[in-house]
Amino acid sequence: MNSTELFEQIRLKRSFLCVGLDTDLNRIPEFLLSKEDPIFEFNKAIIDATADFTVAYKPNLAFYELHGAAGWTSLQKTVKYIRTNHPNIFTIADAKRGDITNTSRMYARTFFNHLDFDAITLSPYMGHDTVAPFLTFEGKWVVVLSLTSNDSFEDFQMVKSSETGKHLYEEVLSKSVNWGNENNMMYVVGATRAEKLTSVRDIVPDHFLLIPGVGQQGGNLADVAKYGMNKKCGLLVNSSRGILYTDQSMRFASAARDKAMALQNEMEILLKNAGLI
Amino acid sequence: MNSTELFEQIRLKRSFLCVGLDTDLNRIPEFLLSKEDPIFEFNKAIIDATADFTVAYKPNLAFYELHGAAGWTSLQKTVKYIRTNHPNIFTIADAKRGDITNTSRMYARTFFNHLDFDAITLSPYMGHDTVAPFLTFEGKWVVVLSLTSNDSFEDFQMVKSSETGKHLYEEVLSKSVNWGNENNMMYVVGATRAEKLTSVRDIVPDHFLLIPGVGQQGGNLADVAKYGMNKKCGLLVNSSRGILYTDQSMRFASAARDKAMALQNEMEILLKNAGLI
Repeated sequence: MNSTELFEQIRLKRSFLCVGLDTDLNRIPEFLLSKEDPIFEFNKAIIDATADFTVAYKPNLAFYELHGAAGWTSLQKTVKYIRTNHPNIFTIADAKRGDITNTSRMYARTFFNHLDFDAITLSPYMGHDTVAPFLTFEGKWVVVLSLTSNDSFEDFQMVKSSETGKHLYEEVLSKSVNWGNENNMMYVVGATRAEKLTSVRDIVPDHFLLIPGVGQQGGNLADVAKYGMNKKCGLLVNSSRGILYTDQSMRFASAARDKAMALQNEMEILLKNAGLI
Repeated sequence: MNSTELFEQIRLKRSFLCVGLDTDLNRIPEFLLSKEDPIFEFNKAIIDATADFTVAYKPNLAFYELHGAAGWTSLQKTVKYIRTNHPNIFTIADAKRGDITNTSRMYARTFFNHLDFDAITLSPYMGHDTVAPFLTFEGKWVVVLSLTSNDSFEDFQMVKSSETGKHLYEEVLSKSVNWGNENNMMYVVGATRAEKLTSVRDIVPDHFLLIPGVGQQGGNLADVAKYGMNKKCGLLVNSSRGILYTDQSMRFASAARDKAMALQNEMEILLKNAGLI
């Protein structure tokens, strides 16, 4: 999928919602725990309930690795389920990997060939080497961390370069922007830093941004759209806990659908206001 | 295991060698491929052949994840095998994780409780949040990336702060040094940057350093010792490909033993010269 095709899906669904599949056995409805693969059962129900309002799914690897081999099987089944039943929905492995070339090549094969994700999140700390091997895969994407939504983002991302006057998160954008292009690279920019989207857009006007932190972490959707939207929308806004865990009964999927629809409704208005639909 | 106990193992074995278990099915002897779990069979033979000369083993997660659920099983069996048969050898999950608190907590449970590793490598890009959850586990360690051995380390690690005049890799050291202590934190510093170990030691004189890049990547062991050794040795020097893949015959393990012994011999001389044994 390229950026034009992704934008087409956004226009079709009137939504730029990404649902984070942070599936936690301690938070899913209890009646699912007796199933053979409760994580997959939960994901399947959430996916079918939210697919109408969603352009991307983003499983967070930590929640699957916690269950070892069984967790990897749940993850694999989940990606395959999306591919088979909702083939136009973009899939992101939230793995935040980053290693030397030789190792990055292994991760790329794992996430792009074996698991068949469209995209993977990467940490830029080790530089170009760690990203380049992923960019050789036709039709696949990397999502590089720039400005994250957590409290301690300032520790290093706000270090200002004495040479360029840019903060590290801006250095990441400006150094990496030519490693790939707007059809194979996105950036993570936290919704809790919406006002900084202006400086982000100065450097990467055309790239898609993956925006975590709306909802539970306090980010505001209207601000994200105001400062971050571009002519192809250019935004995937993620919500995880705010969609997944609002109901513990047999109605959990329908409750998730309501939450996803509410976000889609907000997004539709923002897309209309921007003249994109 | 604390730093004093680790130093005791170094004195006992006259070695500060860490063997990287980057087990690649394309490079292990062909006759192993017919076994039920070739990765585990290879690791077991390598571990038994090198344990006399080794104080740490470091499986690189990418090589296991490539094989999905089966790979996780091989990894789990490998760590358990080390724990059971060589209980005084330190184990490091080379995973380079780094995520928000909620997610880091999941990774910590995975690598420390379920897989029972002593340590995990972490990327510092997202700051204190990403490291803190790992430091609440008694007797466990984090190994934070500072200065890596790959070609593109300069992209971001050499960005100089306009506020402190320090490079980012030094900022990582000086900001994080008080997050934990010398009994639960180490740093990755590539052997290919041995001359920079002086500036590293100015900031973290007492911490252990995990040094990749000796051998295949061109780092020099004597330089590493010269600039990096402290009063508890303070070094774990990793070798992976240079030990694992020197022989493709039935004698592969014995060839690996010879390579490990050769490195141990060099290390023994360096430890003697430093008056540590």
